[in-house]
Amino acid sequence: MPEIPDLIAFVDLLGVFANGLLGGAVARRYQLDPVGFSVLAVVSALGGGAIRDVLLNVQPVALTDLRYLTVALVAAAISFLVPLEGRRWRQVFPWIDGVALGTWAVVGTQKALLADIHWFPAILLGVITACGGGVVRDMMLGNVPVILQRSELYATAAFAGGATLVLLHLMTTGPLASLGALVVGGGVCLLARKRGWMLPTEPRWPASRIRRR
Amino acid sequence: MPEIPDLIAFVDLLGVFANGLLGGAVARRYQLDPVGFSVLAVVSALGGGAIRDVLLNVQPVALTDLRYLTVALVAAAISFLVPLEGRRWRQVFPWIDGVALGTWAVVGTQKALLADIHWFPAILLGVITACGGGVVRDMMLGNVPVILQRSELYATAAFAGGATLVLLHLMTTGPLASLGALVVGGGVCLLARKRGWMLPTEPRWPASRIRRR
Amino acid sequence: MPEIPDLIAFVDLLGVFANGLLGGAVARRYQLDPVGFSVLAVVSALGGGAIRDVLLNVQPVALTDLRYLTVALVAAAISFLVPLEGRRWRQVFPWIDGVALGTWAVVGTQKALLADIHWFPAILLGVITACGGGVVRDMMLGNVPVILQRSELYATAAFAGGATLVLLHLMTTGPLASLGALVVGGGVCLLARKRGWMLPTEPRWPASRIRRR
Repeated sequence: MPEIPDLIAFVDLLGVFANGLLGGAVARRYQLDPVGFSVLAVVSALGGGAIRDVLLNVQPVALTDLRYLTVALVAAAISFLVPLEGRRWRQVFPWIDGVALGTWAVVGTQKALLADIHWFPAILLGVITACGGGVVRDMMLGNVPVILQRSELYATAAFAGGATLVLLHLMTTGPLASLGALVVGGGVCLLARKRGWMLPTEPRWPASRIRRR
Repeated sequence: MPEIPDLIAFVDLLGVFANGLLGGAVARRYQLDPVGFSVLAVVSALGGGAIRDVLLNVQPVALTDLRYLTVALVAAAISFLVPLEGRRWRQVFPWIDGVALGTWAVVGTQKALLADIHWFPAILLGVITACGGGVVRDMMLGNVPVILQRSELYATAAFAGGATLVLLHLMTTGPLASLGALVVGGGVCLLARKRGWMLPTEPRWPASRIRRR
Repeated sequence: MPEIPDLIAFVDLLGVFANGLLGGAVARRYQLDPVGFSVLAVVSALGGGAIRDVLLNVQPVALTDLRYLTVALVAAAISFLVPLEGRRWRQVFPWIDGVALGTWAVVGTQKALLADIHWFPAILLGVITACGGGVVRDMMLGNVPVILQRSELYATAAFAGGATLVLLHLMTTGPLASLGALVVGGGVCLLARKRGWMLPTEPRWPASRIRRR
């Protein structure tokens, strides 16, 4: 088991809570019943980590550490009982979401590195941790996953966080590297949303454009 | 490996057969070829148990016990050759479906408990066993999974079955607890369908309703 | 670990490359950004093998052998930079695709057999290796997976390849059996596409047709 410092562990659970709320908010949009809220909250909050752990061939942490399931279901209950809307919610939520994304990228990459996975697939496991739950939730509802859409840089931000962790591990101690990577991953996510950053679509070569006709 | 009594083992395979038929019935509605019948029958009948076993980090029972795959494919073949329709089918099928759901919830919860999983995630693994295959089948066809829809209490019934098992384990022997839990899980499923039970959607607080305008 | 001869190992990676290109071609059709190209290339090229390894309860080869991830991402980059279209591409691609399908069916069945799985589920794991990545890719985009559609015999060809491997293993050495199975699997795929072969849909019994009214 990785010895991730207390701060990271706390923000990790905060991310579970935030993504549970997000799953619940989606359930509300589709007017689902409490089962729907619970399913979407659990999938959003615990799905990415579960896919990572399944790929690492270990039991998902959500099965062994009860706090994860509890926090996800509490978030489901809250989002069922209280409509999370309004100006304050829209101001605060992106911050929680961005910090959670950065944390999950760091936690996922870290856990993969500790399982002796090469740094390159380890970063991808960080991306899967951060984005996997949302992908499954979107697929369940018949929507194209947000990470495939240009309007969000979720996967890019998670990749930046994981890559920063790998780089910082070369020069500083674990906890500091984690914190730096969290700031970079969360920062890219927040800045991208605020400034409307997007990645380019495929380049258009003049010649091929003609041949396409 | 769990020592589940013979009755449960038999009803477990009956559930595989019933859900294989159900997958085949769906394939017929979409006018698929034999491959489509087989894929949907296998996914419906074995998917939930496979997800449970993957999460428990053991090889899926469908890979190691040949009866599961055989029964699922026989069901696919039958549903390909014989259209399962008519009054008698519509009378009998819900019973098989309900009993299968109860059994799978019990078997899944039981297997998780025997793998030293805490009772709370164990019940959820029972729900996943009972509902997971249907979820994946629905997702493959681009439909929102039935368990997210209000008109069925599949997940609720499975949860009731698993929770009953955990409770009864405190006071009686394994086989009796299994039987009782099966009756509760299957009963909730059957009664819910017969009486049109539904869970409530989110509460509407008077105040928040105004703020929503 | 299986000792698959060098030829098979090479064609295996060629299949990763071809399916990475295919994933990229799909991403281009949906006008995705580089993240979308990478996700669809990785899912197409590595998804089937990952599902097989997860079911076999081992770490996916894509996490432990860096060549897989590298080849898939190079294919994503190429398909992002160069539009793969035109007559020559349409002539060559089906060949690569067919050979890759046959190889993956053989590699998947082989790996399952070496993990002491019975030959029947082993063949199915070969089919999952060959078709699983495409299924997940299609599901992510909200499309019904190609293997459920009558116009392609992907799953049938993969099954033929795996079954041939099992049969040939009874009479000849491993490498020869692999080669023969690859030829059969790839051949069925190519011939089916060229000749427009399809499997029949459900038989229409005269009597039942009347009862259906």
